[in-house]
Amino acid sequence: MYDFAAEPGNNELTVNEGEIITITNPNVGGGWLEGRNSKGEQGLVPTDYVEMLPSDGKDPFSCGNSMADQAFFDSLSTNAAQANSSAANSNNQVSGGSDPWSAWSASKSGNWENSDGWAAKPEGAAAAQRNSSNNWDSAFGHPQAYQGPATGDEDEWDEDWDDPKSASPYFKDPESTEAGAAQRGRPGTSSMKLPLNKFPGFAKPALDQYLLAKPLAKPKEKISIIVGDYGPMWVYPTSTFDCLVADPKKGSKMYGLKSYIEYQLTPTNTNRSVNHRYKHFDWLYERLLGKFGTAIPIPSLPDKQVTGRFEEEFIKMRMERLQAWMTRMCRHPVISESEVFQQFLNFRDEKEWKTGKRKAEKDELVGVMIFSTVEPEAPDLDLLEIEQKCDAVSKFTKAMDDGVKELLTVGQEHWKRCTGPLPKEYQKIGKALQSLATVFRSSGYQGETDLNDAITEAGKTYEEIANLVAEQPKKDLHFLMECNHEYKGFLGCFPDIIGAHKGAIEKVKESDKLVATSKITPQDKHSMVKRVGTMSYALQAEMNHFHSNRIYDYNSVIRLYLEQQVQFYETIAEKLRQALGRFQVM
Amino acid sequence: MYDFAAEPGNNELTVNEGEIITITNPNVGGGWLEGRNSKGEQGLVPTDYVEMLPSDGKDPFSCGNSMADQAFFDSLSTNAAQANSSAANSNNQVSGGSDPWSAWSASKSGNWENSDGWAAKPEGAAAAQRNSSNNWDSAFGHPQAYQGPATGDEDEWDEDWDDPKSASPYFKDPESTEAGAAQRGRPGTSSMKLPLNKFPGFAKPALDQYLLAKPLAKPKEKISIIVGDYGPMWVYPTSTFDCLVADPKKGSKMYGLKSYIEYQLTPTNTNRSVNHRYKHFDWLYERLLGKFGTAIPIPSLPDKQVTGRFEEEFIKMRMERLQAWMTRMCRHPVISESEVFQQFLNFRDEKEWKTGKRKAEKDELVGVMIFSTVEPEAPDLDLLEIEQKCDAVSKFTKAMDDGVKELLTVGQEHWKRCTGPLPKEYQKIGKALQSLATVFRSSGYQGETDLNDAITEAGKTYEEIANLVAEQPKKDLHFLMECNHEYKGFLGCFPDIIGAHKGAIEKVKESDKLVATSKITPQDKHSMVKRVGTMSYALQAEMNHFHSNRIYDYNSVIRLYLEQQVQFYETIAEKLRQALGRFQVM
Repeated sequence: MYDFAAEPGNNELTVNEGEIITITNPNVGGGWLEGRNSKGEQGLVPTDYVEMLPSDGKDPFSCGNSMADQAFFDSLSTNAAQANSSAANSNNQVSGGSDPWSAWSASKSGNWENSDGWAAKPEGAAAAQRNSSNNWDSAFGHPQAYQGPATGDEDEWDEDWDDPKSASPYFKDPESTEAGAAQRGRPGTSSMKLPLNKFPGFAKPALDQYLLAKPLAKPKEKISIIVGDYGPMWVYPTSTFDCLVADPKKGSKMYGLKSYIEYQLTPTNTNRSVNHRYKHFDWLYERLLGKFGTAIPIPSLPDKQVTGRFEEEFIKMRMERLQAWMTRMCRHPVISESEVFQQFLNFRDEKEWKTGKRKAEKDELVGVMIFSTVEPEAPDLDLLEIEQKCDAVSKFTKAMDDGVKELLTVGQEHWKRCTGPLPKEYQKIGKALQSLATVFRSSGYQGETDLNDAITEAGKTYEEIANLVAEQPKKDLHFLMECNHEYKGFLGCFPDIIGAHKGAIEKVKESDKLVATSKITPQDKHSMVKRVGTMSYALQAEMNHFHSNRIYDYNSVIRLYLEQQVQFYETIAEKLRQALGRFQVM
Repeated sequence: MYDFAAEPGNNELTVNEGEIITITNPNVGGGWLEGRNSKGEQGLVPTDYVEMLPSDGKDPFSCGNSMADQAFFDSLSTNAAQANSSAANSNNQVSGGSDPWSAWSASKSGNWENSDGWAAKPEGAAAAQRNSSNNWDSAFGHPQAYQGPATGDEDEWDEDWDDPKSASPYFKDPESTEAGAAQRGRPGTSSMKLPLNKFPGFAKPALDQYLLAKPLAKPKEKISIIVGDYGPMWVYPTSTFDCLVADPKKGSKMYGLKSYIEYQLTPTNTNRSVNHRYKHFDWLYERLLGKFGTAIPIPSLPDKQVTGRFEEEFIKMRMERLQAWMTRMCRHPVISESEVFQQFLNFRDEKEWKTGKRKAEKDELVGVMIFSTVEPEAPDLDLLEIEQKCDAVSKFTKAMDDGVKELLTVGQEHWKRCTGPLPKEYQKIGKALQSLATVFRSSGYQGETDLNDAITEAGKTYEEIANLVAEQPKKDLHFLMECNHEYKGFLGCFPDIIGAHKGAIEKVKESDKLVATSKITPQDKHSMVKRVGTMSYALQAEMNHFHSNRIYDYNSVIRLYLEQQVQFYETIAEKLRQALGRFQVM
């Protein structure tokens, strides 16, 4: 179906578009099959690079519907449970003609990384992340992390995903995934997919269920909101913790053909480590997004791509970003205290992990239903106030999104200059001075050794400055960029959050008609306003959390930036002063 | 002959190529004539923009031979003496099809400045200078000095040039001017025109005259060479002086139509000022070049162009360069003591100036004949040694020329970056930070005033840094560039100097044949070797002068550069430290 270039030494088989290969083993796993080409060569080919020729008289699956293909291939699998799970997930996560496909089409190299875009696993989120991450990374200017050929796809969906995902109720509605895909494809806004529509049925029915259910089932969970000095706020736990992400280790499976990276996570409160692979992070992200995403911005995970040449540097950076993500989550009073998050960090053995996982996936208090667990200890709000609050958040987050993007754009430009033309120029100045000293040395004139040595030193100093300039962004701009990138991630979640709130406000506005036609009672309407008020309190509490973090983060990161800049310029001044000292006062 | 666009308010007449105008006054002066077009409009037109239609049956002069045209036009002049002088000069200085023409053709705007390239005055040198200056200026990166429309041609040859130049013997040989033009046109090497051929006849006869004249007439002038610690050296005067160039004043003539700049020159030894216009400097340059140019590099004068928009800035820079040029000349023991130079600075009245001028123009000790005045108090050299010395100078000056050009190229690049994209980027960083602070201020969240003020300050600091960066090159790179530019000028003179020396060496080598055929005596040959030895001593003395100046100049200018750079980086560090101080430690 597509050209596929085998990576040497990986048991892979190069196939060309239009070439017919015989499948010798359709179930190697991990999105691979074993095939034999017309020359009799045998090897692994990504399932998505081939199209199954019909043996039952049916039309071949259309290319656009990759996941249907995948489902077909997977149905051939002897491991039915896994295949079903995969297929169901795939079908849900990546619908026909969605982003991963276009992303794949745009890919020039057909890199391995891209192949997981349609592999049999819930890659929708990952694909969305990749898109956003790529934006970021190109914005960030770490091109080295994205160059070179891929070495492998490290995080395939494999046998340890023994829980049939289809058991989770909010991965069933095809229309919702359609919407999800559209959302993911929206350029530059949201990088999260928000399961507003997690219940059988559509978004509005889900909203209706929250706003109109009577009585609202008292959930076991409870998220309190109190009114503090700065307005509504989440209740912060008495003790906080962080979680250190460290020690990335390469593991492998499929007889060493495929490798993955495993991280050690150590919560600072327990100091007991657990290991997680990237896909577990991804699973957690999905859970948090599903459960809290209408109330709390859940930034996407960093890119999962691994490249060949710069693998180590990439792993380091991804770990840094996973660390930042975990720290964010730990810092959040609602998320850090949630069962799914706690369980992710504190399971004692494989069995406990799997049990917890299964439980989390069955959780029904997701989407807008999370608001049913929110209990504001505060007076009811009227609709106008609710609407104003929502608009204010909308306006602020939009403005900040613009501001953050401006800074990222400028930072990217600056990064490029500082790592590209500027040090080259200082190098040239250094070389030109040294050349001049070399010429001067050839003059045969006596008594100019001191001058020539001094000029040579000055030249070397400019070469050192070239290095300082090129290395500096890693010491300061990097962190400013990372911080802004994180906030870009947060801010990208707000359109959906605000969408949910505005949807609820609209519902209430429309409810007068329902009262008039006696479809609901005035009491129902009152209860709707109260519930939208609860949503508003949650939004306000979250915004206050957001603002206090923002103030802390920007204060810290700009401080750090300026500190490093001061040091940078002082170092240069000092080096130049030393060079100057070599010149005689004549 | 060419399109000419009149400058408004200047009594000028716009003419188009092919248009026939009636000349109402062919002798307005300064390269202008008064004409009337077919519409009856009357005004001034540069003589070189029009072609005289023949009234005597002869073919019109070809366009390529502008100076012949000029001579023709000038011959119409009622002021025959002036015209003859001009024509003779022109004919010598700018031969048909030479640089000024091509420079003119390449000019898009037909600016006034260019018109003096073929005006009735000795503009060859000025044209050559302009070429080199333009190279330099584009290399230097002072584009502002060359933008905008011209306001006027300030230095026309006018009535105060009452001395018939044709009296000077070395402006007569058409072949020599051919060679001179070729020399001037040589890209990137020499910007001086060397009157090797100043005597009636060719270069070689002139060289013969010096090498073979017997006995060599004992000149009144005497240039001594002694052997010091560093080898042969000029005798330095016991007291030295500089000459301050200051107070540029605009004068005008032709009823205010044309203006010029007059400078005040104050030698530090007399402290008595004289005034000189640019053209007087140019006259001095011509004299020095003619007299000393085979022995001493005489750098060309700075560009004489004046532009409209940036006139003041340009005048300032030109004055700075005239100052540098004068200082160079004053620093040179041979030049500073020469009669022509002394007279230029010390004439007491107009009459004395004119007498001195006439005398200088009649000086016959020019070209290679200058060596007849050189008296080395040193043993005779053998030819091998002479040749080695000459080759060493050739090699060094070529290498230094490369080195200097490399530094100029790098400096130009750096200048562009520092005044262009880099400050723009810092400005953008500053603006982005301030935008962010503005967004933050709109949050409605309490207690972030300090942060927002601090971010605003940091933003303003980056705007200040932008200005510092943009202004810095004027404080340091400028001087480094000027120094290298001066040396580029010096070094550009060496190919001709070395050419003269190599020519003499060749003569001596060939002399064996002459001795064999009894055309000259062995004694003649001995005397030739001695005279080439004198040339070699002069070259060595000049090189020692050059080297000691070079060491002083480069030591000073790199010191200055580094000092300013240290201060620059320290200022930035200090500004950033202040900005940092606004951020709270959280």
